[in-house]
Amino acid sequence: MAIKVYGSMLSTATLRVLLCLAEKDIDFELINVDLASGEHKKPHILSRNPFGQIPAFEDGDIKLFESRAISQYISRTYVGKGTDLINTDPKKAAVESVWMEVESLKFDPVTTKLAWELCMKRMLFGQNGDEEVVKAEEKTLGSVLDVYESRLSESKYLGGDSFSLADLHHAPMVKFMMETRIKDVFDARPCVSAWVADILARPACVKVFGVPAY
Amino acid sequence: MAIKVYGSMLSTATLRVLLCLAEKDIDFELINVDLASGEHKKPHILSRNPFGQIPAFEDGDIKLFESRAISQYISRTYVGKGTDLINTDPKKAAVESVWMEVESLKFDPVTTKLAWELCMKRMLFGQNGDEEVVKAEEKTLGSVLDVYESRLSESKYLGGDSFSLADLHHAPMVKFMMETRIKDVFDARPCVSAWVADILARPACVKVFGVPAY
Repeated sequence: MAIKVYGSMLSTATLRVLLCLAEKDIDFELINVDLASGEHKKPHILSRNPFGQIPAFEDGDIKLFESRAISQYISRTYVGKGTDLINTDPKKAAVESVWMEVESLKFDPVTTKLAWELCMKRMLFGQNGDEEVVKAEEKTLGSVLDVYESRLSESKYLGGDSFSLADLHHAPMVKFMMETRIKDVFDARPCVSAWVADILARPACVKVFGVPAY
Repeated sequence: MAIKVYGSMLSTATLRVLLCLAEKDIDFELINVDLASGEHKKPHILSRNPFGQIPAFEDGDIKLFESRAISQYISRTYVGKGTDLINTDPKKAAVESVWMEVESLKFDPVTTKLAWELCMKRMLFGQNGDEEVVKAEEKTLGSVLDVYESRLSESKYLGGDSFSLADLHHAPMVKFMMETRIKDVFDARPCVSAWVADILARPACVKVFGVPAY
């Protein structure tokens, strides 16, 4: 099997790559990296990702890291296989690219902080999240999702009329948020809520997340 | 003139787009957005960038925001004009893409915090930066630049043998850092230091930054 993903099902960044491979219907081998024992800081992972993070990716002679660079590589290389995830019209692809940036720079930072306060702190250190921080981040997320609501009232998907990497990149963290009380922030916005239902019901999401979507 | 950039010379994100246009030797009109008066939160900018930030970009009928999406659009659309900023070999382009992600997710956040503590706080609020925060961020930047040092000991540029968007995206914040005491963090690493000198000496940088480079 040519494609190897070094990662963990506990990592939203790894799930982003697995979702992309599922949409493209591409076989791969997942080599589990044990985050709990700090395996991602060991030499065999550092040689694949110098920042000691996951995922790392291998396709024959090409080695990559950074989940969003990997998903773009897969989408551009395996054109015509599975779902097209980057529009072939360069202008439409440019708009998709804008919303990929928005996911990375606006959506992911705030939801990562919320995931930390609401879940990871307890899982890793047995501590409760800071309610003040949660409230502030919830407000920030609300402002971001107000922009999404407006965008999704004009087009079915963030990048335009068709599902693209711009939507896919959100899916793992959206799925995570749906299992917390932050679901309410999404549900309060009808177009965002319909978009969430649509992307989480995709066969690739159901396959990778292992449970029926919302 | 078809291409319009709504932005400010005080914004590193705007400078990123201007540098890209300079490398591609493309004419454009810069429409100054007065950050001090909050013009970026007014309807005519919000209609171009729903997050009320700059730059916003227009090329005929296409309107974009997010500087790194704009630079990729320019590089992919104006192939063969000026400097090629994305490799034509898809595998090499994928590696460039990895380092574009690294700039956005590793380099920019820490240098933005340093710029805030060392300069912007004083400029905007007449306050001194927090020395403890500066020390912590300096350490984080050092760790990021250790990875850059290793990478740049193997290849002349971050993405490979040729200058690409992966390098260009760094230039405005690198230029900013060179004018602070954080320059020492770069200078302590010979390959990083040579890379800084190389990119800031490019005619596009000299033109956009308006002064000779280091």
